[in-house]
Amino acid sequence: MKQYVFGADIGGTTVKLGLFTAEGELLDKWEIPTRKEESGALILPDVAESIQARMKEKNLDPETVVGAGIGVPGPVREDGTVNGCVNLGWGVINVEKQAEELLGLPVKVGNDANMASLGEMWQGGGKGFSSVVMVTLGTGVGGGIIINGKMVSGSNGAGGEIGHICVDETETETCGCGNRGCLEQYGSATGIARMAVKALAASDKASKLRDVETVTAKNVFDAAKEQDELALEVVEQHGRILGKALAGIACVCDPEVFVIGGGVSKAGDLLIDTVSKYYRQFAFHASRETKFALACLGNDAGIYGCAEAILTK
Amino acid sequence: MKQYVFGADIGGTTVKLGLFTAEGELLDKWEIPTRKEESGALILPDVAESIQARMKEKNLDPETVVGAGIGVPGPVREDGTVNGCVNLGWGVINVEKQAEELLGLPVKVGNDANMASLGEMWQGGGKGFSSVVMVTLGTGVGGGIIINGKMVSGSNGAGGEIGHICVDETETETCGCGNRGCLEQYGSATGIARMAVKALAASDKASKLRDVETVTAKNVFDAAKEQDELALEVVEQHGRILGKALAGIACVCDPEVFVIGGGVSKAGDLLIDTVSKYYRQFAFHASRETKFALACLGNDAGIYGCAEAILTK
Repeated sequence: MKQYVFGADIGGTTVKLGLFTAEGELLDKWEIPTRKEESGALILPDVAESIQARMKEKNLDPETVVGAGIGVPGPVREDGTVNGCVNLGWGVINVEKQAEELLGLPVKVGNDANMASLGEMWQGGGKGFSSVVMVTLGTGVGGGIIINGKMVSGSNGAGGEIGHICVDETETETCGCGNRGCLEQYGSATGIARMAVKALAASDKASKLRDVETVTAKNVFDAAKEQDELALEVVEQHGRILGKALAGIACVCDPEVFVIGGGVSKAGDLLIDTVSKYYRQFAFHASRETKFALACLGNDAGIYGCAEAILTK
Repeated sequence: MKQYVFGADIGGTTVKLGLFTAEGELLDKWEIPTRKEESGALILPDVAESIQARMKEKNLDPETVVGAGIGVPGPVREDGTVNGCVNLGWGVINVEKQAEELLGLPVKVGNDANMASLGEMWQGGGKGFSSVVMVTLGTGVGGGIIINGKMVSGSNGAGGEIGHICVDETETETCGCGNRGCLEQYGSATGIARMAVKALAASDKASKLRDVETVTAKNVFDAAKEQDELALEVVEQHGRILGKALAGIACVCDPEVFVIGGGVSKAGDLLIDTVSKYYRQFAFHASRETKFALACLGNDAGIYGCAEAILTK
């Protein structure tokens, strides 16, 4: 009986690996270094070898293993082809096919952010739901769209690139993607800090944030929780921009739940309450009661999602 | 061998029916009246009877029929439950289950706009693609999202309700949905006429549109094709708002193609060229080359989509 699955979340420095039961219990996790020399040609053999070694060590009959899911930090097409992955030195290669040959087991490849979303749906903040929009608020704004339990990778691997929805045509600063006015420029940790710096410069209002050398999103939410007026204004501004964007996303795919993760999500209830308040203001009536939840798997979301991806391949 | 499928597109006045081969050839189409008395209780029996009569007339062995797809003018849940359908007098009923019992064949139920999108993907403007965003520009702005050949119905039946993405928070007029600043208020035929009336009032510029008693979207595009400056400005304004919204949608589901239908799509190349120009300006780089196509099945899109829906159930 097929009862075990592996997940491998390839990052720029390390590959996180996990062994799960088909029911979603994490039995073991470990890491190996990501060897980027030789244009990343060693990475997949290393992953395959590490999984095979663990199978041997644990006496796992290959007949009992469903396969392995692999997350990569780049765009992935439906057929498992990675469309260039600068961080790893990869060009266009069919990772799914290569990994299956190396491993002798079925493999499913996906974008790492999408895999993390799938993990949160399976065993995290979105557990019990099958249509989930995951929003990761970190240095940037990442997203993952899951419809009926399946990731939406997108025809160019850009499914869930919600950080690059244009939310302000009048923006003068450029986003990392080259456009101007992207959601990421306001919704991310960096964006929150940027809005706070602007708010501080635009008024003489007293604020705890004036005592901080380099304002961060954490400073802003901490000050807001202490009722700092200017910080509260920035939190409202952030919630309005993000909540409105999520209302637009709901008009496209109408998920059951939005799961909010990434560093900014540590702000907890204040973040969720503010974003969901504005979401309901802008949402189409049928989707007004869509749930909001915090992500809860942290850095393990990726390996969970990889495991779920191969289970539902 | 299963080789035939039926499609039934239920409208407020008539039910359009079609008999297709599994390859997508329309063999026969006909209509029956939609009897709305008795809270619409006669509609499904009428549809089933009409399909059975046609099978008898054509000597079709039920063994050769895959089933029937049914489109309804209201929100439909994944399990085939219609979540209230005011036009037909229906409350919350599981149409799929009822129709299967009446017909003795597998049935797939979907929202009519989504069904039309599926039809355009199968045999219309999106033929050859499996990830399609259909945009219907009529009295309102409708949408249909198809990912890997499957409709995205949405957890509240609001998948593809792209007409209600908020595109202008400063709007003072109310949309039919109760919100303000919905894409529908600018992108639809009604929206184009409204923008033209506003543009006429806001300037003294000479325009052919001043000679028209009640300006329509058709007047605007016709005048623009004759290089009427004010009409061209409205076409640009429309293309900018719609193109930008579609760029946001591509950041969610990254389709292969946008298929534009509805009455406004009769404007043809001028519409497609303007919308796609602004789309490319606002799109995330990976999705910048997404294709645009005109819908081409007209009022038959619904029955085509119903047939495809049961084929891929």
